Amino acid sequence: MSMDVDPARERLLELRASIDNLDAALIHVLAERFRCTKAVGKLKAENNMPPADPAREQQQIARLRRLADEANLDPDFAEKLLTFIAREVIRHHEAIAEAHAAPAGRGAKA
Amino acid sequence: MSMDVDPARERLLELRASIDNLDAALIHVLAERFRCTKAVGKLKAENNMPPADPAREQQQIARLRRLADEANLDPDFAEKLLTFIAREVIRHHEAIAEAHAAPAGRGAKA
Repeated sequence: MSMDVDPARERLLELRASIDNLDAALIHVLAERFRCTKAVGKLKAENNMPPADPAREQQQIARLRRLADEANLDPDFAEKLLTFIAREVIRHHEAIAEAHAAPAGRGAKA
Repeated sequence: MSMDVDPARERLLELRASIDNLDAALIHVLAERFRCTKAVGKLKAENNMPPADPAREQQQIARLRRLADEANLDPDFAEKLLTFIAREVIRHHEAIAEAHAAPAGRGAKA
């Protein structure tokens, strides 16, 4: 039973419980973010708006780096993470644009 | 002034405001997660616990994939994201282990 009262092991399990809660939060915040970016993709496809907006992207990166710095998070990591998420957003937008552009009668409904 | 009343443009700005809020949430949840994983790294270094725990990692991946699926998020994306974050965690842990192992008098204090 010594494992049960090992204080280091107990502290490890406490920290892991926090990590698990934070991971669930991350997943749900990300799910909501993708709901928003998918709505942006649909809006742009339906209104012939340009898919990319370099000025907006630069603002987002600068803001995230500042927020990361304030939260004691490596700004380079935050920027790399945004790039990682943005790649998934582009994948979604391409699928939305394709569905929007597909001829009628092939299951497309934008 | 037509840009100001373009409903598509207005909707785009609304969605972007939500995305900006969610990004701030992501940054702060991640900052707290790294605080926890850094505490894990310190705890393990101080107690000679093995840095890796493959069983825990498998449980984390399976749980995150399930949570992602429930939140309508691609489970493959969620797993790739966890891997991306885990690489940063390993980088922190290596730094913590190095600081812990460094000889006294060279600024190391674990």
